[in-house]
Amino acid sequence: MVHRIAVIAGDGIGTEVMPEGIRALEAAAKRFNIDLALTTFEFGSCDYYLEHGKMLPDDWFDQLKSFDALFYGAVGWPDKVPDHISLWGSLLQFRRQFDQYINLRPCKLMPGIKSPLAGREPGDIDFYVVRENTEGEYSSVGGKMFEGTEREVVLQETVMSRIGVDRVLKYAFNLAQTRPRKKLTSATKSNGISITMPYWDERVAEMAKQYPDIAVDKFHIDILTANFVLHPDWFDVVVGSNLFGDILSDLGPACTGTIGIAPSANINPEGKFPSLFEPVHGSAPDIAGKGIANPIGQIWSGAMMLEHLGYQEAADTMVKAIEDVLSEGNNQVLTRDIGGQGNTLSLGQAIAERI
Amino acid sequence: MVHRIAVIAGDGIGTEVMPEGIRALEAAAKRFNIDLALTTFEFGSCDYYLEHGKMLPDDWFDQLKSFDALFYGAVGWPDKVPDHISLWGSLLQFRRQFDQYINLRPCKLMPGIKSPLAGREPGDIDFYVVRENTEGEYSSVGGKMFEGTEREVVLQETVMSRIGVDRVLKYAFNLAQTRPRKKLTSATKSNGISITMPYWDERVAEMAKQYPDIAVDKFHIDILTANFVLHPDWFDVVVGSNLFGDILSDLGPACTGTIGIAPSANINPEGKFPSLFEPVHGSAPDIAGKGIANPIGQIWSGAMMLEHLGYQEAADTMVKAIEDVLSEGNNQVLTRDIGGQGNTLSLGQAIAERI
Ligand SMILES: CC(C)[C@H](C(=O)O)[C@@H](O)C(=O)O
Ligand SMILES: CC(C)[C@H](C(=O)O)[C@@H](O)C(=O)O
Repeated sequence: MVHRIAVIAGDGIGTEVMPEGIRALEAAAKRFNIDLALTTFEFGSCDYYLEHGKMLPDDWFDQLKSFDALFYGAVGWPDKVPDHISLWGSLLQFRRQFDQYINLRPCKLMPGIKSPLAGREPGDIDFYVVRENTEGEYSSVGGKMFEGTEREVVLQETVMSRIGVDRVLKYAFNLAQTRPRKKLTSATKSNGISITMPYWDERVAEMAKQYPDIAVDKFHIDILTANFVLHPDWFDVVVGSNLFGDILSDLGPACTGTIGIAPSANINPEGKFPSLFEPVHGSAPDIAGKGIANPIGQIWSGAMMLEHLGYQEAADTMVKAIEDVLSEGNNQVLTRDIGGQGNTLSLGQAIAERI
Repeated sequence: MVHRIAVIAGDGIGTEVMPEGIRALEAAAKRFNIDLALTTFEFGSCDYYLEHGKMLPDDWFDQLKSFDALFYGAVGWPDKVPDHISLWGSLLQFRRQFDQYINLRPCKLMPGIKSPLAGREPGDIDFYVVRENTEGEYSSVGGKMFEGTEREVVLQETVMSRIGVDRVLKYAFNLAQTRPRKKLTSATKSNGISITMPYWDERVAEMAKQYPDIAVDKFHIDILTANFVLHPDWFDVVVGSNLFGDILSDLGPACTGTIGIAPSANINPEGKFPSLFEPVHGSAPDIAGKGIANPIGQIWSGAMMLEHLGYQEAADTMVKAIEDVLSEGNNQVLTRDIGGQGNTLSLGQAIAERI
């Protein structure tokens, strides 16, 4: 069975880490006899925008819909195209049109990586953030009134649907069932955001009834961010709305010292549309073009993609290869952001060899 | 000149730390010859709600409006009254009706307090979070449709006005001018929240033109929370919307290890209405009634109140007294949350004596 993968490198360091992501994927494919067919697309980048006046061609949906997965680098280059145009014109389109309603991000303290939190060791921090990925605070409903005057008012609607909330909760509860601690934490703000967030809480309480084996707690987002720093060991599966999930899935990796290497999956669990796999980091214009970006986020995202396609062992092997190379701590291999003197290529090659 | 202070202890540990807040205030008043007249109110607590069916009497506004300041403990007790009712019925009313459009919170690593961040010492972290405190994501506009059915949809409107945004920015820029580093960081999310947040950015850029002496930068809220953990030394004055400010002003104190002792001010800068001073911590039902709550947040809030009333030296003396008692590190005096064996009273008394 051939798995067709659409490759979109995007902008900045996206184009530099992607070759290493592919190298690792191909190594895993070879070792585990997985048949991958990669097709590269130029669209979904700011350079494409500058040439065509849009981030994606009109028929992008038809071009991509029959792929088994999308492997994405990073998008955005504010000096070329404002972020809200480049992002809404590409990544956020994929998430919505392909109904990738789950954004899944592991937060795991890896060997050889120093956590910014005092006294935390590998094993201490190991949880998932499950983020609603299509609705909520990221809405396109709203507008401006009294434009350009003193009385100017700007409105934006947060939209939560029962369908949208329930399906992400269900995914998160199911994930919690596969974990040893069987614990789910809900991110809320029902004490301040008085309509949507009490609704979120209601749905969590309702869903919890169907999962008596899962220990459920909830925190308001303000104190929850504090607890990520103070008690990262409390968490197992954390579920949040689009915005809260976005925040927690940057903060979580930051607490594990892995903001530059964390992976993410944008999943359509039913498989009706392709899912998308991308590193958490952005396009990093400041270091782009130097060949020094850390490719681990891209490689780890590739592992999540193989897992999604059903190749658990291959995925585990890729993650293990990352851990081994990190544990080894060879200065000539590691990139600068994690204390080495190597570059994108040296680290990518070392991991691919290990696989 | 007599300064009339309305005292509302609220719920849980609010009622325990308030006497220590008052003790310290009275010590400072005595030493610096400040004429304070305190009046205690029972309303604004969940017990009041249980008796009266509302958090505040109908004429609360008239009862309180001519005070020079409100000194608040903590409100909320979810087992008695749901948070969105107790909070919207009290604290959030004060903030709105008294147009306390600034929420100001210092994030300062204090001597003797261990930061959860590795290798950070007092002096390394010292910034302010300035939060818009009346509009934005905390709106009461919205509702539910198709209630109780599969198609259920819940809407809540974020509302930003030019008046609302500009005045908080102005306050933050002015504050930055008083600081040695003259730096302002704006919290945004204009890459994802595509209407209100680009507007926020626009207003920041506009306001910045009037403050050429201030170095301005901005981060999306997701990476900003990460940077609080990774680079807390980058920040001087951080300004955010109601929700973003709320998150950052819990996360900031968490990074300084002071979530239980941080103060906050809800300010109406024009002095048209009384401002309100309260600790960042909540009513903490879990430890209420034991006399072990840390009173520093309440005392430090009292210092912010004196500063607001024009007594800078008295305020500085109160903060210095807190720092001295913390530096001294007497186990018999400090509360358990900061590693001692003392209680609310011992710590409160020690600080008052020092003042
Ligand atoms: C209790 C809650 C409504 C409140 C808020 O979100 O404003 C609190 O978190 C705060 O920061 O003062
Ligand atoms: C780039 C931005 C729109 C995006 C988001 O907020 O979803 C990013 O932060 C992410 O988490 O993938």
